Amino acid sequence: MRAVIQREFGSPQVLELAEVQTPTPLPSEVLVRVRAASINPIDAMVRSGAFPLLGEPPFILGWDVSGVVEHVVPGVTRFEVGDEVYGMPFFPRAAGTFAEFVAVPSRQLARKPRNLDHAAAAALPMAGLTAWHSLVDTAHIEAGQRVLIHAGAGGVGHLAIQIAKARGAYVITTASAAKHDFVRELGAHEAIDYRTQDFAAKTRALDVVLDTAGGYGDASIATLKPNGLFVTIVERTDAALKARAEAAGRRFAGITVEPDHVGLEHLAALAEAGSLRPHVQQTVPFEHAAEAHALIESGRTEGKIVLTL
Amino acid sequence: MRAVIQREFGSPQVLELAEVQTPTPLPSEVLVRVRAASINPIDAMVRSGAFPLLGEPPFILGWDVSGVVEHVVPGVTRFEVGDEVYGMPFFPRAAGTFAEFVAVPSRQLARKPRNLDHAAAAALPMAGLTAWHSLVDTAHIEAGQRVLIHAGAGGVGHLAIQIAKARGAYVITTASAAKHDFVRELGAHEAIDYRTQDFAAKTRALDVVLDTAGGYGDASIATLKPNGLFVTIVERTDAALKARAEAAGRRFAGITVEPDHVGLEHLAALAEAGSLRPHVQQTVPFEHAAEAHALIESGRTEGKIVLTL
Repeated sequence: MRAVIQREFGSPQVLELAEVQTPTPLPSEVLVRVRAASINPIDAMVRSGAFPLLGEPPFILGWDVSGVVEHVVPGVTRFEVGDEVYGMPFFPRAAGTFAEFVAVPSRQLARKPRNLDHAAAAALPMAGLTAWHSLVDTAHIEAGQRVLIHAGAGGVGHLAIQIAKARGAYVITTASAAKHDFVRELGAHEAIDYRTQDFAAKTRALDVVLDTAGGYGDASIATLKPNGLFVTIVERTDAALKARAEAAGRRFAGITVEPDHVGLEHLAALAEAGSLRPHVQQTVPFEHAAEAHALIESGRTEGKIVLTL
Repeated sequence: MRAVIQREFGSPQVLELAEVQTPTPLPSEVLVRVRAASINPIDAMVRSGAFPLLGEPPFILGWDVSGVVEHVVPGVTRFEVGDEVYGMPFFPRAAGTFAEFVAVPSRQLARKPRNLDHAAAAALPMAGLTAWHSLVDTAHIEAGQRVLIHAGAGGVGHLAIQIAKARGAYVITTASAAKHDFVRELGAHEAIDYRTQDFAAKTRALDVVLDTAGGYGDASIATLKPNGLFVTIVERTDAALKARAEAAGRRFAGITVEPDHVGLEHLAALAEAGSLRPHVQQTVPFEHAAEAHALIESGRTEGKIVLTL
């Protein structure tokens, strides 16, 4: 099969298309024909060597996938050949979804939401599960709670707004002024331009703050009501920040996303109910993965970049 | 740390205790201090080379584990240091629970049942999830259904009896006469001595047959009512048997167990309700893993063999 591989760390130009062996699914796994694979910021960090999660190259990048079950190893009952599925297999270990085929444990996949095409479905797993694990599994947000989401126009943020809204929360978000229409359409009740306004002066007594941007820890903690929860997907290892939150009578949670078919099923149900739709800024043919990585690193994307096959 | 390793395929004597590097948990993973690790038939098959699931040695065997969370990578919120946990990480890929420590994705662990010690908890994941995936996730057994479980005194069978009973099924099982008291104590309504009696002559109009022994496919299918389900964990790749079942108007499902924290949580709830208790025939100190493997291969065990640390 063809795959996007890299033989060294470096700029997007290290990505090349190569002929490699098609993976052989083990018992409990299925072989998925990849139709779309979205790019996440972590892909660029692993590619460059900034966060060498997969060790030394060569390797095939990619975790998000949407595709069609090509082969089922006897012993798997959750899927049949031809089923449309999506998921984020094996993270944080190597999965290799930037390829024509990927082998995936059946319990790391769920049915693709019927009303999303493969490109949109591939945009959902890593960013959507991050938001779900933060807001639902960890913060247990409830109707009527006041939630602040930093960087609401971003990959995780734009899904977090929709999840919080669907659960009945009052949603405040930060975004540059040009993106206020976008975040309001997603369901945000208030949008704050972080470039010209002090979010901390405009918000108080919050139940939950979800920080998907980083750098807003102390100011965010100050906006929480007593025992409120600061959830960060960025400074999750910042023990000093955690200690300051707890000294102030607030709670702290750092989140790392994990494969989770139950979460995928919840996200698919929200999507099918019309409450959750990933925003795909651009699809890029698989053969041009380097261009897609350059886009991600430009810092100018809104929503997700998706490779299509 | 110390671990049970093997440098070649072969008899139990290839197992040796060695000093190896303690695993480093990745983001989303926790480091578990192993207190007990049970042995399953597949361990012996991988050790001998009969089923080289892990490729060529050297490797550390073992999937079932019960232990204590030693370290949590920041970003994991499901567990804290000191929590007692159990699970079956990474199967069918390498986990290495026959060691002092193992790194495990947080969503492949659940809380250890409070009323089970580590040896009993370690006996539960692989065998219990196999039974759960067969009877609940696949067969969806319901109160009043008639279920036949082959080899009800075995590692999977003795848990399957208890799960089927807890869900209100009428449970028939096969076992040698000497084990009839044991399977009745587990909750079986009828026990059939497969050595002296023809189970197919004594059972009919069954809703589900779970075959944990192998070799009873056609006779079992004949005992099912129309559209009844034959579930096998042995002949799961037998396409001809599947075709014969379907030609007869019965359904066929082959099962391979998978890591599944939701299943583990269900099993723990059953255990804590007093409805599910693994039978540990013998515990063996970790240092004597070869003896434990020889026991498993003797064919004379009843219930599970567990390594303790």
